[in-house]
Amino acid sequence: MPTIVVDVMPKAELLDPQGKAVTGSLARLGHGAFQNVRIGKRIELTVEGEVTDEVLAEARTVADEILSNAVIEDVVNIEVVE
Amino acid sequence: MPTIVVDVMPKAELLDPQGKAVTGSLARLGHGAFQNVRIGKRIELTVEGEVTDEVLAEARTVADEILSNAVIEDVVNIEVVE
Repeated sequence: MPTIVVDVMPKAELLDPQGKAVTGSLARLGHGAFQNVRIGKRIELTVEGEVTDEVLAEARTVADEILSNAVIEDVVNIEVVE
Repeated sequence: MPTIVVDVMPKAELLDPQGKAVTGSLARLGHGAFQNVRIGKRIELTVEGEVTDEVLAEARTVADEILSNAVIEDVVNIEVVE
């Protein structure tokens, strides 16, 4: 069954405390090459049958209204993965 | 600065209670087209300078050892995003 992947990230202008904490830990563990870690959600929606334009539009609505908090998050990507 | 995106998902064979709860809510809200919702992490690592093979290998190590719990999660994707 096809899967729709929805990627949700914290808004760029907002502080990401979780990301900041991981950034600090990576530096302390000797992985200073990576700065500014940001952590979001990757949501997989399995679809019965074919992914039509209607289903994709519904996925966009669900992503914007239910799977993300529009005040603090952005839906950065929606793609169909076979 | 280039960004490396690491996608981490719960292991397929494990129960994903968070995903199950969202699946139920979507059905109740009239979005029954989406079954078997699974929720994982999307982590962005910003890299200073160029993403060399060494940096990518280090990102793989960091993803496997620090950013994911190998007992319950799989690193499903690592990609460079300009």
